[in-house]
Amino acid sequence: MHNRNNAVVLQSGGPTAVINKSLHGICCSWQRTKAKIYGSLFGINGLLENKMIELDAVRPMKMKEVSESPSSALGSARFNLQDRSGFKNEILEKIFETFDRLGIGFCFLIGGDDSRENTCTISEYSEQIGYEVFVIHVPKTIANDLTFTHHSPGFASAAKFVVMAVTGTDLDNRSIPGVMIDVVMGRNAGWLAASSKLARKNGKMGPHFIYLPESSFSIPDFLQDIEHSMVELGRAHIVVAEGIAEKDSIIKYIDGIGGTEFLKQLCGIDDFNHPQLSGNGLLGAILCHLIKTRLKIKRVRTNTFDYLQRSFPVFSCIDQLQATMVGCKAVDLALDGANYGMVAIGSDEFHYNDEIGFVSLGKIFKNGGRKTKTVPKDIIVDNNGVSDAFDVYMGPLIDRMPVVEFLF
Amino acid sequence: MHNRNNAVVLQSGGPTAVINKSLHGICCSWQRTKAKIYGSLFGINGLLENKMIELDAVRPMKMKEVSESPSSALGSARFNLQDRSGFKNEILEKIFETFDRLGIGFCFLIGGDDSRENTCTISEYSEQIGYEVFVIHVPKTIANDLTFTHHSPGFASAAKFVVMAVTGTDLDNRSIPGVMIDVVMGRNAGWLAASSKLARKNGKMGPHFIYLPESSFSIPDFLQDIEHSMVELGRAHIVVAEGIAEKDSIIKYIDGIGGTEFLKQLCGIDDFNHPQLSGNGLLGAILCHLIKTRLKIKRVRTNTFDYLQRSFPVFSCIDQLQATMVGCKAVDLALDGANYGMVAIGSDEFHYNDEIGFVSLGKIFKNGGRKTKTVPKDIIVDNNGVSDAFDVYMGPLIDRMPVVEFLF
Repeated sequence: MHNRNNAVVLQSGGPTAVINKSLHGICCSWQRTKAKIYGSLFGINGLLENKMIELDAVRPMKMKEVSESPSSALGSARFNLQDRSGFKNEILEKIFETFDRLGIGFCFLIGGDDSRENTCTISEYSEQIGYEVFVIHVPKTIANDLTFTHHSPGFASAAKFVVMAVTGTDLDNRSIPGVMIDVVMGRNAGWLAASSKLARKNGKMGPHFIYLPESSFSIPDFLQDIEHSMVELGRAHIVVAEGIAEKDSIIKYIDGIGGTEFLKQLCGIDDFNHPQLSGNGLLGAILCHLIKTRLKIKRVRTNTFDYLQRSFPVFSCIDQLQATMVGCKAVDLALDGANYGMVAIGSDEFHYNDEIGFVSLGKIFKNGGRKTKTVPKDIIVDNNGVSDAFDVYMGPLIDRMPVVEFLF
Repeated sequence: MHNRNNAVVLQSGGPTAVINKSLHGICCSWQRTKAKIYGSLFGINGLLENKMIELDAVRPMKMKEVSESPSSALGSARFNLQDRSGFKNEILEKIFETFDRLGIGFCFLIGGDDSRENTCTISEYSEQIGYEVFVIHVPKTIANDLTFTHHSPGFASAAKFVVMAVTGTDLDNRSIPGVMIDVVMGRNAGWLAASSKLARKNGKMGPHFIYLPESSFSIPDFLQDIEHSMVELGRAHIVVAEGIAEKDSIIKYIDGIGGTEFLKQLCGIDDFNHPQLSGNGLLGAILCHLIKTRLKIKRVRTNTFDYLQRSFPVFSCIDQLQATMVGCKAVDLALDGANYGMVAIGSDEFHYNDEIGFVSLGKIFKNGGRKTKTVPKDIIVDNNGVSDAFDVYMGPLIDRMPVVEFLF
């Protein structure tokens, strides 16, 4: 029999619009146990520095307002409990001291890939030291790049933001023609950029081209696409995932205009010692320069959606609901004795059903679990577009969008 | 007696979220005349190239959907009918040819400062050639910089977007502390940046500092503000209007890091032969670099709201209503024989009442009408904030914002 009855919740990584819904789901579902539930402030830092909140003592109506607020109400952290040399034992010891002191037998980590790894580390370490704790990973990510789930809570709300934003910029580009470029988050996975396709409700609306990190990217093709659209429609509306900043074609262009050293100084460098162009608006500026210089188009404008994608207070209803449900489910699973695993949505990564289930993380790691879930080939068209197969994937996730209409 | 009974509507300048509401108001109010009403596509271009839409023939339900869509449904243009050497007579002749051919006796220009000037030019030219046409300017601008009206339709919806966005980025910065900078539109007038103050519902929420084009800006003070906030709160959330890009302090900083020539090449130059930093995300990158370098703060992030401010499909209810009403009023006024003037809201520029009235543009020009309506001194606090007097100004304009809550 389990002799430590209390629980702790952590939020980690980049926030989403619905991450507090999962927190709310966990708290609501935990009530029936009559045991305590703590929130650790700023992820694992709260456990190390003893900065904990008694979540069961928070007024229910306050908790309801928290659940409807974007961003992580407990604060967040990026923290890995393991590195190449193995477990960070000193930190794990401290964590388990806190666990022991507070009678923690259940630990819920709401987060992305890092949280999933930490779930494994805590589980394995607990076995090693013989401390029984049921650890469950509750997925969240706007990037939708977690494997072993059809989608992750947070994605659909971010996608809704992207579709709304792109609908607006498309109407703007339609009213003042030229080239409009929207830069969307996603360094390795293009799910969020792909979702902009849903703004294209008919042949008259853009975005006309969508470039994902998963597609190959060549400047001549890119310029040809734009030229073609300018001739055909008198305008071109383009969505690029920030991941294309790392493509050779772009790196060479920056070199060519003599910008490499200055941009490294201004924005720092990425893992490949190239200027850091994602997350800072510079990719848009570079693409503007490219189009203006090579195609002699005067009006070229760019929007970088930045952190608005994960924090703007618009929500997909289904996302709010599912974020709550994965939280509730995590508690059900843990109380039923599940451990060392994640909550997942759908029958598999690409086929939806409304079931919320459990995936053992042992299984994940056997299958190469750190792998990013990228946009599959059948969804990418000609390296510059997204196929209708994507609509099928997104169908269950996204709310009805505002009706827009124009006169020409 | 007026013998030309038809009307034409133009939309000009940067679109807003509610500019089509004014179009809708004009069309609805015009119905009672039983005369025709044309929409000129792409502002004055439609009149020159004979690209006109019969607005009275558009299905009412389609028109309703148009009215609820952001951006200019007729297309837009930036076009001045006058330059320093006087009227552009050749173009005006063509416009009046079209007027004559279509029996136009009423002309409604929905737009900002340029449209107001064009209203004057068309009115004066019509007197000169003895063609009777009633020309009315219907104000719109997200920048809120039009004089002789308490505010302009379009501003409140853009302000709502800014408040929502800043609420989100503030929660993001709270959950992952560091410095967060939001760059808001406004080169000469800081109304939109100032409106971010409404996100600060209590002492725990940011933005902690707001820098307007109307304030003086010094890098040492700016860095001191941030340092102070980091010590006090462990984080700093800052809103800057893009207009501060043109401040000497920033120009010198760019020179100092050797960026001037490259940035001129990348982004072009402004009217003062400085690198064009507004409207392209670079101001944010420069401020990031400044803070990271001088204050040794690791996490500094920036968001540039770009075109989302004027095209994102969120609307202030009162803005939608007033945009419709200024359209209706323009028709009432013109049919009552008003001419050569603008529709205006409120009792004067800074005192609200719900009356929508008429301002003769003769009066405007006598009073120096091209002047931008900037944020007055009593609203700016210490060059880095906005006073509560601003809440009084904004009170009638903005919807209730989403409730947000946090746990620490």
